[in-house]
Amino acid sequence: MTNPVLVEVERGEQVESCHRGAVAVVDARGRIELVLGDAARPIFARSAVKALQALPLIETGAADRYGLGDEELVLAASSHGGEPAHIAGVERMLKQCGLDVTVLACGTHWPLNQAAAHALARAGRQPSALHNNCSGKHAGFVCVACATGVPHAGYISAAHPLQREVRAVLEGLTGMTLGEAAIDGCSVPTWAIPLTNLAQAFARFATGHSLPPARAKAAARLRAACAAKPFFAAGTGRFCTVLMQALGERLYVKAGAEGVLCAALPRQGLGIAVKCEDGAGRGAEVIMAALIARFLPGDGADRQVLNDLMRPTLRNWNGIKVGVLRPVAPLLTSQGGARAAGRGRPQRV
Amino acid sequence: MTNPVLVEVERGEQVESCHRGAVAVVDARGRIELVLGDAARPIFARSAVKALQALPLIETGAADRYGLGDEELVLAASSHGGEPAHIAGVERMLKQCGLDVTVLACGTHWPLNQAAAHALARAGRQPSALHNNCSGKHAGFVCVACATGVPHAGYISAAHPLQREVRAVLEGLTGMTLGEAAIDGCSVPTWAIPLTNLAQAFARFATGHSLPPARAKAAARLRAACAAKPFFAAGTGRFCTVLMQALGERLYVKAGAEGVLCAALPRQGLGIAVKCEDGAGRGAEVIMAALIARFLPGDGADRQVLNDLMRPTLRNWNGIKVGVLRPVAPLLTSQGGARAAGRGRPQRV
Repeated sequence: MTNPVLVEVERGEQVESCHRGAVAVVDARGRIELVLGDAARPIFARSAVKALQALPLIETGAADRYGLGDEELVLAASSHGGEPAHIAGVERMLKQCGLDVTVLACGTHWPLNQAAAHALARAGRQPSALHNNCSGKHAGFVCVACATGVPHAGYISAAHPLQREVRAVLEGLTGMTLGEAAIDGCSVPTWAIPLTNLAQAFARFATGHSLPPARAKAAARLRAACAAKPFFAAGTGRFCTVLMQALGERLYVKAGAEGVLCAALPRQGLGIAVKCEDGAGRGAEVIMAALIARFLPGDGADRQVLNDLMRPTLRNWNGIKVGVLRPVAPLLTSQGGARAAGRGRPQRV
Repeated sequence: MTNPVLVEVERGEQVESCHRGAVAVVDARGRIELVLGDAARPIFARSAVKALQALPLIETGAADRYGLGDEELVLAASSHGGEPAHIAGVERMLKQCGLDVTVLACGTHWPLNQAAAHALARAGRQPSALHNNCSGKHAGFVCVACATGVPHAGYISAAHPLQREVRAVLEGLTGMTLGEAAIDGCSVPTWAIPLTNLAQAFARFATGHSLPPARAKAAARLRAACAAKPFFAAGTGRFCTVLMQALGERLYVKAGAEGVLCAALPRQGLGIAVKCEDGAGRGAEVIMAALIARFLPGDGADRQVLNDLMRPTLRNWNGIKVGVLRPVAPLLTSQGGARAAGRGRPQRV
């Protein structure tokens, strides 16, 4: 099926570009609140499932053993900007299990945060694996290996006991058997999962529904940590951080590469999964902001943050407003929702 | 009409994302060689028409008056990476008419070339308007204003005599009356033009067909300059530079923001215009490389460059191959071409 246009990019008075995508909003039992586009096609969730990949860090007792606080827990589920506080936190995680940057197998890139990258260059330094946006997740993996007495060597391989445990956690939450893994940007396995299953997984993450008690408790602890320290989930001015700063415990949200975003709305008991067909993060962000505005009742201040994120102004290098991104009709109304996907009323996945 | 999928992004064995787009390949008389998608819808050409915007620099005699060589002419039509040689060239252009960076109204951003940006930071410096990727175009505009005795103040306004002249040149080449301008990233006017008209404009730029002699001569001089100094059109490792380095006078190609690419094939007498629907440069590049490979006969070395650009390998931060981008069927065969657009045989625009 052809995914609908969900976002228009306007310049002057004209649509310059557009983004198509698919969306699923599902509760923990699998009841579909909204489906747009092809939500049944498996998509690589990429970094959007880092919170689920980080659950063993808490469940195995590794987090407590190494005395990890909120900042470190959030970093274990983060795609951080490589800002100084991010780097310091990841170093603390590694130090707690007696290791350092040399154990990280994520590869190296310059900090995503431009100011942090330029500060590093200005200091005459080069980036290390600590600056990789996935270094917190990798440090968390290493902590789990160390705490459970598994050699950390090869921890990025799909055959390593750690990745098999991560896979089992994902299968439990998504309610499906995962196929063969592809390789993610940071070299760990990434699996293709339909948006409906991803959304249900985040509804379970939001509520603990149908999870073993230890896993439900780990999910609640991780959500609380993100609400308390959202800076460590992404960084200055970035979508997930800004939204969680504004909405606190009412929202968990996480971006993945190639236009993926997942969210959990604990009070509504809903999970949301978004894939922008072309892989554009800007498209996925507008879609997600529009869905949160639709499904999460909020007050004036919340609305302003959501409005700014769902209709971002495009300004040029002189600060002149040249256009806007905006969500289009099927996202804003119930028309074209579950009904358009051939479902007259909410269904189970 | 729904634009077809023209590029697939594959990870592991699965399509992760895809890009839709529209394409026109047209000769100077308006005969359509290939149309895919909605090539009749006006799109903002953005920086893809910088060569056409730079024609007055040569036609008015400004280039000769200020002794501009190939490097400066190419810079006037460039979206450069802000590498040191680019900056030096733009400074020379301004110096030739007795001016400096303070006259540039393009705004400031860090160099697009990462190494150049980090070198600037390492030196403890901040970028200036010279580092804006459009600074060469702006310097060219200023040269024209100075040489023709028009005040350069306000040269970015659609009402300024310079921009009215640029508009007239674009109308002549595209064979259409332009509507109201929107504002480009560097604050100059940008007009919405159907791909078929853009492609015809570049076929005229390629051949001089139906152009006033002075304009045809200016186009040939600019093409020769780009073939001689392609580094100044974009920069190290960038699509347009790499292609023109490989193909010399057989190809002129120029990217614009939001997934636009235009090309001229002088020996075939063809112009090509591409718009990736979602604005992705990576999608537009694969589409354009596939079209050039299809319409430009070449030898082994050319083929390798084109193959690499039309099927770029995706590697992660550890250098592991994780996927590939590739053009899909309608781009590679004549099936689904002009015929699919409801045209049984070549037609005029």
